[in-house]
Amino acid sequence: MVKENGKVVVLDFWASPYCMRTKIALREKGVEFETREEDLWNKSELLLKLNPVHKKVPVLIHEDKPISESLIQVQYIDETWTDASSFLPTDPYQRAQAKFWADFADKTISFESGKRIWGNKKGEEQEKGKKEYLESLKVLEAELGDKIYFGGDTFGYVDVALVPFYSWFYALEKCGDFSVEAECPKIVAWGKRCVAGRDSVAATLPESEKVYQQVLKLRQIFGVE
Amino acid sequence: MVKENGKVVVLDFWASPYCMRTKIALREKGVEFETREEDLWNKSELLLKLNPVHKKVPVLIHEDKPISESLIQVQYIDETWTDASSFLPTDPYQRAQAKFWADFADKTISFESGKRIWGNKKGEEQEKGKKEYLESLKVLEAELGDKIYFGGDTFGYVDVALVPFYSWFYALEKCGDFSVEAECPKIVAWGKRCVAGRDSVAATLPESEKVYQQVLKLRQIFGVE
Repeated sequence: MVKENGKVVVLDFWASPYCMRTKIALREKGVEFETREEDLWNKSELLLKLNPVHKKVPVLIHEDKPISESLIQVQYIDETWTDASSFLPTDPYQRAQAKFWADFADKTISFESGKRIWGNKKGEEQEKGKKEYLESLKVLEAELGDKIYFGGDTFGYVDVALVPFYSWFYALEKCGDFSVEAECPKIVAWGKRCVAGRDSVAATLPESEKVYQQVLKLRQIFGVE
Repeated sequence: MVKENGKVVVLDFWASPYCMRTKIALREKGVEFETREEDLWNKSELLLKLNPVHKKVPVLIHEDKPISESLIQVQYIDETWTDASSFLPTDPYQRAQAKFWADFADKTISFESGKRIWGNKKGEEQEKGKKEYLESLKVLEAELGDKIYFGGDTFGYVDVALVPFYSWFYALEKCGDFSVEAECPKIVAWGKRCVAGRDSVAATLPESEKVYQQVLKLRQIFGVE
């Protein structure tokens, strides 16, 4: 047990898309919470104790109990605060479809897949990274189609899972010298819609320029420059 | 839509641990189903049509609609056939814990992690593969502890996710010249308990020797011999 007096706490890192998922989900549900900013190069004792397996943010603490893994947290939040509308449909088949697309987004539009772009200098590896990233994004764009959100008229599970990565597009574009909008206009329009239409997203996503500055720091740390 | 007249059908490959998960889940729920054996080197038009994104087995067809990804199928089965007891607990925190361990098992005890053992000749790469595989299995062993099943007294979601890989242990041991039981006695005892205690598992898991012969074929195909 963790002594947090029952408060909802997120062990957080502001630029982490995974942490953004959890904060968006909490805000969608109107849950008050505190964040504790982690130094990922000098992780707190609390983080190491609460997530000993992965040692990663975000950790969600609720009723003094820790929950790890962002998509599992989003589902936990959905099942715990049931007054607000659910992120997932009620029909089992529709639920399975939403989980499929969130899983696809999670596997293909990830920190690692982005790092193949910003973590390489211009050249073959970066080109491969861009190609795969855009191919995956195009599959998601086809699934989105002309819907408002991935959840249809409802901002849902797939939207929560994917929209944090929208805040990294600018940094990827600057590092990789390409335009996401030119390749995936519907995805970029959807990202703008999420920021404009959902307070939860607007309150959570950092400025693109700030993410880019963070990515430049990461490039120095990883010796890309 | 797929014309299967509402039957439950699994596009299957007998040695795939992922397909085993789905078949175990259906059998636990007492659902009658047909399997269609796929040739993974010459996939059927139906498989490519129903799972165009991943092109992988298993595909579960129910009421003429396809569902992909084994863990999503297991959750779908759990939510659709609710007369039999659920694989997941009802309490959101306990559900999140079960999902966490199934996800950990899925990421670390996988076809790919096994392939690092059987897909390499004796040597450094294989040793690294064995080390990582056993380290992950020990984390799972610690989580199992002295419980009957990962689900406690109930054969649950984590059990369904992990037990198929028990049928591959013998092949890995033969290829890697080691003993899983020497390193993880509780996991092996749990695997035996699942086979002895659950008809669903006994009816689904292939003989270890048959899996080993299949792995020898894979080693030829991948040029390991």
